[in-house]
Amino acid sequence: MNSEPKRKVYFDHMANTPVDPRVIETMLAHLSETYGNPLNLHDFGQMTEQAIEESRQKVAELIGADPLEIIFTSCGSESNNFAIKGIAKAYEKKGKHIITSTIEHFSVHYPLKDLEQQGYRITYVPVDKFGFIDPAAVASAMTDETILVSLTHASNEIGTIEPIAEIGKAAKERGAIFHVDAVQTAGTVPINVSELPVDALTVSANQFYGPTGIAALYLKKGTRIIPYLKGGVQEDGRRAGTPNIPGIAGMGKAAELAKIEMQDRIAKLIPLRDKLLGGLQEKIEEFIVTGHRNTRLPGHVSGCVKFIEGESMSMFLNMDGIAVSTGSACVSRALKASHVLLAIGISPEDVHGSLVFSLGKDNSEKDVDYLMEKLPPIVDRLRQMSPLSKGGTGRG
Amino acid sequence: MNSEPKRKVYFDHMANTPVDPRVIETMLAHLSETYGNPLNLHDFGQMTEQAIEESRQKVAELIGADPLEIIFTSCGSESNNFAIKGIAKAYEKKGKHIITSTIEHFSVHYPLKDLEQQGYRITYVPVDKFGFIDPAAVASAMTDETILVSLTHASNEIGTIEPIAEIGKAAKERGAIFHVDAVQTAGTVPINVSELPVDALTVSANQFYGPTGIAALYLKKGTRIIPYLKGGVQEDGRRAGTPNIPGIAGMGKAAELAKIEMQDRIAKLIPLRDKLLGGLQEKIEEFIVTGHRNTRLPGHVSGCVKFIEGESMSMFLNMDGIAVSTGSACVSRALKASHVLLAIGISPEDVHGSLVFSLGKDNSEKDVDYLMEKLPPIVDRLRQMSPLSKGGTGRG
Repeated sequence: MNSEPKRKVYFDHMANTPVDPRVIETMLAHLSETYGNPLNLHDFGQMTEQAIEESRQKVAELIGADPLEIIFTSCGSESNNFAIKGIAKAYEKKGKHIITSTIEHFSVHYPLKDLEQQGYRITYVPVDKFGFIDPAAVASAMTDETILVSLTHASNEIGTIEPIAEIGKAAKERGAIFHVDAVQTAGTVPINVSELPVDALTVSANQFYGPTGIAALYLKKGTRIIPYLKGGVQEDGRRAGTPNIPGIAGMGKAAELAKIEMQDRIAKLIPLRDKLLGGLQEKIEEFIVTGHRNTRLPGHVSGCVKFIEGESMSMFLNMDGIAVSTGSACVSRALKASHVLLAIGISPEDVHGSLVFSLGKDNSEKDVDYLMEKLPPIVDRLRQMSPLSKGGTGRG
Repeated sequence: MNSEPKRKVYFDHMANTPVDPRVIETMLAHLSETYGNPLNLHDFGQMTEQAIEESRQKVAELIGADPLEIIFTSCGSESNNFAIKGIAKAYEKKGKHIITSTIEHFSVHYPLKDLEQQGYRITYVPVDKFGFIDPAAVASAMTDETILVSLTHASNEIGTIEPIAEIGKAAKERGAIFHVDAVQTAGTVPINVSELPVDALTVSANQFYGPTGIAALYLKKGTRIIPYLKGGVQEDGRRAGTPNIPGIAGMGKAAELAKIEMQDRIAKLIPLRDKLLGGLQEKIEEFIVTGHRNTRLPGHVSGCVKFIEGESMSMFLNMDGIAVSTGSACVSRALKASHVLLAIGISPEDVHGSLVFSLGKDNSEKDVDYLMEKLPPIVDRLRQMSPLSKGGTGRG
């Protein structure tokens, strides 16, 4: 038996980041001490109220918002569902046309499908081979009935960062509300909503070393929304329910750290990303990079290996202690071909060979080296076993 | 200056329980170690999957359910909104009639109001002076179009425990789905859904020493529901969104402890409750007990003090370090007269003098003594200041 402890390399930060120890410390303090209901006026409640408002301030500062513009929710999917349905319902007297893209997360596509069944018209703007949404395409899809444009800032599957400033300009010129799903970007790359033509923005703590179970929706002052969760008057009447006290405290701390450390994290991640991308292109025959080479998330590497299942590669990598993803965690179990990869023109066969390596602030060059040592032999072995590959024995 | 540290007494457990240190310990372990996305097949994800399923098992065991019947949500209000709208939509082909009571939490009443606007008919069954819902009244309100009966197991404002077995029997005889808002009872008093005619049940961790931000909806096998939060395939496709890992782990631990310790907690709380109730009746002139004297939550004491604002009493008590509530935390800020107290026949004037003392497992007899030392003089002082009271100077 090998007594050497197995090296563990986590390259799945798009699915979930580990919680920063400093965030855990903050949560721990609030788990022990802060439990009064903030709607009650006693000291216990007021202590909670203060903790929540301090966190709201920090989340606001991360994206250049006013604290009143931050609504806490339970996850990025809730923020997306809430924004899309809540804004659509609030503005439906103006019109029932909504614009989105072909590469959105299912928490954007599914509520839009619901609205479609209720008589709304949805336009799915296509993307180019890099995954870029063309602002001109959004502009030309706009009509007087367009009430909402809802687009991702960056897809977790391909990492391409979208030109939201230009798209927002097109949306705002025709008076539509612009919602951005910034789950993968808020806390990771600079976003300043005070300088962007954005009315609503989804932010998720578990993408910048905060805990799961807590997220936010930024909603610009004056933007109307119909609440879904009704009951108490929490979140200024926009989202009922006893607040997630440790989660909110943790998100605030994570936002504070992300703001302070963002440039350092980016400066560390881009060279690691580029080293990994270069290594994969060099060492893996027929590796197709997905997304744009440079205009992509700092720690994001993705591609398809021809003739091999991504699932098989990820399982072999896991045996070596390396965690990667084959696409969006939310759909991986469904084993459907990724609509995002199909949308950028990857063939249905090649889609099945997709891998996403998402690096985080605590990954090192050694982690990249370890992956580059382990993956090529796995690919070779799988290619030899595959009836599809050139090297296969064609048992089929 | 008084250098003696102020005694702190927390009597607001209906609004939120403190998190048990053993629950914090469990959450802490998972905050540090468990962060993989459970939908991904690598070891990190599988560790999370295992933690979640262990917690689901424990929550299921707390109420006699099968783990597959437990859907994690972000709060009791979400479970109520989800159950009511999701079940109503799933069964609307059968009919559009729903029965509820006049003493429900707003997270039940508000979604029902939304459904009313969409053409559903809602019957509000009244309660008697103790707050009891009469099973015969529910039975006689049932029609062939009744698809859902949604009722509280115990209101946080009056604590009366409702006869859900009898009510459920009436609902099931006519084929309706029976949803119980058990936020105040699950984890506090025994509930065994396998022996109850209940199809859906709202459970909230922050009522039994688990954290805020996590709750569950029990949904009996075969009961249909239309999801609201859409996106990923989490919770068996019934509730999208990356799961709240520390919250779920904490809720599981809290459920495990509640099951083991429930009888001891009840045995401790009932004498404390009765001592406090007796003391209030004895020491406070014109104290009206609200809710039933015995068939009430183990740690729950509530009543109205004539001629005085509950808000004033609670603020003075707070100055002595004692936290009590004037009613439901979720509406206290709205300063509306409690619909629950009006429903049991308290006059609109007396409603304003309402107080809720909710005791928890870590309260002691000394806490009750301390309250009984502090409250009577506060009442006397306020009565002397009040133009309404007999002793008032009638400055108006």
